[in-house]
Amino acid sequence: MSNPIVVEVMRGARVESRHRGAGAVVDADGAVAFAFGEIDEPVFPRSAVKSLQALPLVESGAADALRLSEAEIALACASHSGARAHVETAAAMLAKAGLDVASLACGAHWPLGEDASRALSRAGETPSPLHNNCSGKHAGFLCLACASGWRTTGYEQAAHPVQRAAKAAIADVTGAALGEGVCATDGCSIPTYAVPLRALARGFARLATGVGLAPRRAAAARRIFAAVAAHPAMVAGEGRFDTEVMRLFGRRVFVKTGAEGVYCAALPELGLGLAVKADDGATRAAQAMIAALIGRFLPLDEDARLSLAPFAAPTLRNWNGIEVGGLRPAGPLAAPAR
Amino acid sequence: MSNPIVVEVMRGARVESRHRGAGAVVDADGAVAFAFGEIDEPVFPRSAVKSLQALPLVESGAADALRLSEAEIALACASHSGARAHVETAAAMLAKAGLDVASLACGAHWPLGEDASRALSRAGETPSPLHNNCSGKHAGFLCLACASGWRTTGYEQAAHPVQRAAKAAIADVTGAALGEGVCATDGCSIPTYAVPLRALARGFARLATGVGLAPRRAAAARRIFAAVAAHPAMVAGEGRFDTEVMRLFGRRVFVKTGAEGVYCAALPELGLGLAVKADDGATRAAQAMIAALIGRFLPLDEDARLSLAPFAAPTLRNWNGIEVGGLRPAGPLAAPAR
Repeated sequence: MSNPIVVEVMRGARVESRHRGAGAVVDADGAVAFAFGEIDEPVFPRSAVKSLQALPLVESGAADALRLSEAEIALACASHSGARAHVETAAAMLAKAGLDVASLACGAHWPLGEDASRALSRAGETPSPLHNNCSGKHAGFLCLACASGWRTTGYEQAAHPVQRAAKAAIADVTGAALGEGVCATDGCSIPTYAVPLRALARGFARLATGVGLAPRRAAAARRIFAAVAAHPAMVAGEGRFDTEVMRLFGRRVFVKTGAEGVYCAALPELGLGLAVKADDGATRAAQAMIAALIGRFLPLDEDARLSLAPFAAPTLRNWNGIEVGGLRPAGPLAAPAR
Repeated sequence: MSNPIVVEVMRGARVESRHRGAGAVVDADGAVAFAFGEIDEPVFPRSAVKSLQALPLVESGAADALRLSEAEIALACASHSGARAHVETAAAMLAKAGLDVASLACGAHWPLGEDASRALSRAGETPSPLHNNCSGKHAGFLCLACASGWRTTGYEQAAHPVQRAAKAAIADVTGAALGEGVCATDGCSIPTYAVPLRALARGFARLATGVGLAPRRAAAARRIFAAVAAHPAMVAGEGRFDTEVMRLFGRRVFVKTGAEGVYCAALPELGLGLAVKADDGATRAAQAMIAALIGRFLPLDEDARLSLAPFAAPTLRNWNGIEVGGLRPAGPLAAPAR
């Protein structure tokens, strides 16, 4: 396997580091609009498919039965910063299911958001599972279990109906076979299934368009897309890539990070889904890749193009604020001469 | 440029991410004992050469004139965690030069050490330049300037005698030509000069043996090696790779990280220097690489081999402490069948 160099990290005039990767831009019928690198090798999407894992919550009627708000549905799709709003929203979801933090099986970690993390330290507190970036997804799983009359203990296990439903949704939307050989354990203890980038991209095109999905599933996808577009700060947090890119483009772009250098995205107006993976697992590379692809496909006016540029090619500054270099898309992602 | 895959990140039974890189193990005469990838392309060593940058401080007599302690000399070579001991030691160095934190040009950042960072937050404080992981190096620069009668302002600039002396030491020890094309600005605002891995490795072999160095420089190198071996917690911090590996091996191993996936090391008893760079800049990959090389060359008993193993092939656990995968050296660094 030798994927191309797709992002270069410059220091002064020299390339300091290089990221390789693969990516696919695919429509709902599976037609590849653009691709680079190995796109048929299964990769773990990790948190990038939280919106697919949230489909059963919505389409089963559980979200409505528990009167989940749009912000709560967005949080079910989030890798959130652990800020107060995220923690309170996750707790509210659990309360609607008659549960509390004790039911969460995701484990605790310090908030992803630096401000949230420092605030917690400053308050002399330590993180609970509510601060885990996956707490909204887990609260969603618990809401589904509760509304469906399933036991809530063990909801994170592959054999539990909640995880079987999530797996079935991923398999249906992406069209990928999720055999035993592609299963591993995610950071929050649920199973994660490796899926080829081509199938992930097609899945996000289908999620965005509803093409090929059962009507109930397509309707759930529309609600999820509306929820994340209306609450981009729920999906990640202030200052973070996913939130800021979605703020920039509103309903035109859905974008979601996964650990180890994966990003999935959708451009609904074009009917396209996008999926990238940095070979080395670097988030900075995956962000530059997905931003470069958005810039390549989405029709943008000059203002929007300028606003997107710092995401595809961020400037690196040192501790004194001096510009020391930056990232730039390279190889198949290099900016075309204009 | 296509360096080999040298570290694989496993999740379950699958490779989730892959790191490429290059490395060299070289003796003081320049004989290559082992190499993989491109070792003649200049790479920015960043903080990995702090021990070379500290040579002028010691060999000029400045360290003795200001009565710097062994711990303070170790801190001059450090990328420290910003723990209390580091901060106090840096402040003490400045005080010996009649200066204080206001003279530091490195900028401020939150302590690298998570415990130190949380403690600072908990105390309601924000970081000062003393918490910058480079504050010991900068305090060393200021001590050199003071003892030499040079102005202290602008000591971080390439044209200042302090930086000219540091550059000359790197050029002398590594034998690399440091022309204009290889200079950029480091995170702490001093110049950083790109040096081929082959030359870096040879430089650390010369530093460890004194071979090819002027007597005064060789003596300074011996003092620096003794200082870091006696104070491994000064060079990084509790729980960090460099400190823990040096604790494991005492004077047998010197190891130092640089940003963007660089590590340099020396094995004095073998007269060997080591230098590696992960193409993508990942510290986790560089650590696994340098640990694998130490294990390949240093004669170790079974206990020491077992102690080193988690550094070359760390286990990855999730937020619930469940083992989800791990890193493993690959390709040219794959463990030989035993």
